[in-house]
Amino acid sequence: MIRIGYLGPEGTFSEEATIRYAAGREVTIADRPSLEDIFRDVAAGRLDQGVVPVENSTEGAVGAVLDLLAGPYNLCVHGEIFLPVRQTLMARRGLRLEQVERVISHYQALEQCRGFLRRRLPTALLEECASTAAAAGRVAASAAPWAALGPARAGLKHGLQEIAPNANDYPDNVTRFWILGKEPRPAKSEQNYKTSIVFGLGDRPGALYTILREFALRGINLTRIESRPAKKNLGEYLFFIDLMGGQEESMVREALQEVNSITLGLKILGSYPVEA
Amino acid sequence: MIRIGYLGPEGTFSEEATIRYAAGREVTIADRPSLEDIFRDVAAGRLDQGVVPVENSTEGAVGAVLDLLAGPYNLCVHGEIFLPVRQTLMARRGLRLEQVERVISHYQALEQCRGFLRRRLPTALLEECASTAAAAGRVAASAAPWAALGPARAGLKHGLQEIAPNANDYPDNVTRFWILGKEPRPAKSEQNYKTSIVFGLGDRPGALYTILREFALRGINLTRIESRPAKKNLGEYLFFIDLMGGQEESMVREALQEVNSITLGLKILGSYPVEA
Repeated sequence: MIRIGYLGPEGTFSEEATIRYAAGREVTIADRPSLEDIFRDVAAGRLDQGVVPVENSTEGAVGAVLDLLAGPYNLCVHGEIFLPVRQTLMARRGLRLEQVERVISHYQALEQCRGFLRRRLPTALLEECASTAAAAGRVAASAAPWAALGPARAGLKHGLQEIAPNANDYPDNVTRFWILGKEPRPAKSEQNYKTSIVFGLGDRPGALYTILREFALRGINLTRIESRPAKKNLGEYLFFIDLMGGQEESMVREALQEVNSITLGLKILGSYPVEA
Repeated sequence: MIRIGYLGPEGTFSEEATIRYAAGREVTIADRPSLEDIFRDVAAGRLDQGVVPVENSTEGAVGAVLDLLAGPYNLCVHGEIFLPVRQTLMARRGLRLEQVERVISHYQALEQCRGFLRRRLPTALLEECASTAAAAGRVAASAAPWAALGPARAGLKHGLQEIAPNANDYPDNVTRFWILGKEPRPAKSEQNYKTSIVFGLGDRPGALYTILREFALRGINLTRIESRPAKKNLGEYLFFIDLMGGQEESMVREALQEVNSITLGLKILGSYPVEA
């Protein structure tokens, strides 16, 4: 039985993505209290795979996940999942929207609803907490006129009522998750693959040009380019790139060899089937 | 008298950067409750300039500021400030590190100290709040064994004591701020200038190659490349680039003309003197 970990507690969007991925497979799923716990347990073999959020269409990259991927755990990407994310405002039965004095949620959820909150609840206090599921629990446990932002199922679980079913500012709000494992996913060439890499460029971000040229010359499409600080000096960056093609394909292999000779510490995070 | 706004309340790193910028100038400084309030007040002429954090050497880009710059306010960058950021753990007099049950701070400050907190306070609850200054206030107002992470001066103001003077995981932790105004800063060609731009590439991040080529061909150095979601579909990005040179210099002007013809909605955020 394969064990898959996600960022808990139960009721988060991460759990929803994991349930979707697990559907029809022989797996057990288990929550972990932090992203680093997922990385540590997959690296130590206590989990076979982990599901982690990597970017959101409104809020961008999940920096903590990118930093962990560039770090010492050396996990590999086995696949990706796209989850439509609808933030629902929920409160105890009977509370009306205009009565809400405090909105509790995870930092990213509050950011995704910033415009809605400013328009509809301009005087409410915004309180950040560790997860959308924990926010629903906090609201359910208090008699105060508070509301939680998060997945509708987190509210259901705590007996909360929806008071604004779709509070995110951008209707097509989507989060992309990666499935991580300890060993590279075995390549099967019959599918449409994507490859993800990370590398450093020291203090020469302009050198990104010479990297991108290697892909452009070979007609390799890039679907994402993301920078993260290298954590040493301001102005030193790591770059994360997703490209179309598996690392076993000759054009991709050739390009990666060239890129390896130019960059600092190229790490191939993995090749995996493209999801719609 | 020039009025400069920053993200309050008093005691934040933003205030410290603003005080540093204001030193020796005839200015008054005023706090604002949110980043958007700063943008709105500068656009409306209620403030002459605003000081906003744009990136940190540990935590990367401040997404909310980049989104506001790409948005409808059309502010211009007048300058940059680099502020060394030392996160101090502070509590009421007499509390020892091992007694701390809860650590309160702003999301970014907690992220900058993640390793320290895990090592030294593995069981403490981490609570996010709106600013490092507000965190110090909350700790001072409670008799519970809580501590705040933030600038030492925020603690001093509230009568707190330092219990760990340097809690950030990376010693060279620096935040870069931008000074924003309504009109472009008048160009003076005798100085060393940097120019910042933002543009869209639709769903073709690989087209970044053709943009970077325009700068590379003309020997223009890039000091930063940052992507942000365009907020429409996942996979559509905006790119923020900082390059060496003022927009009045012929090579830069030429390159920007070429880039303008390739990109969607190129916006020149401004040219301003390079800070050390």
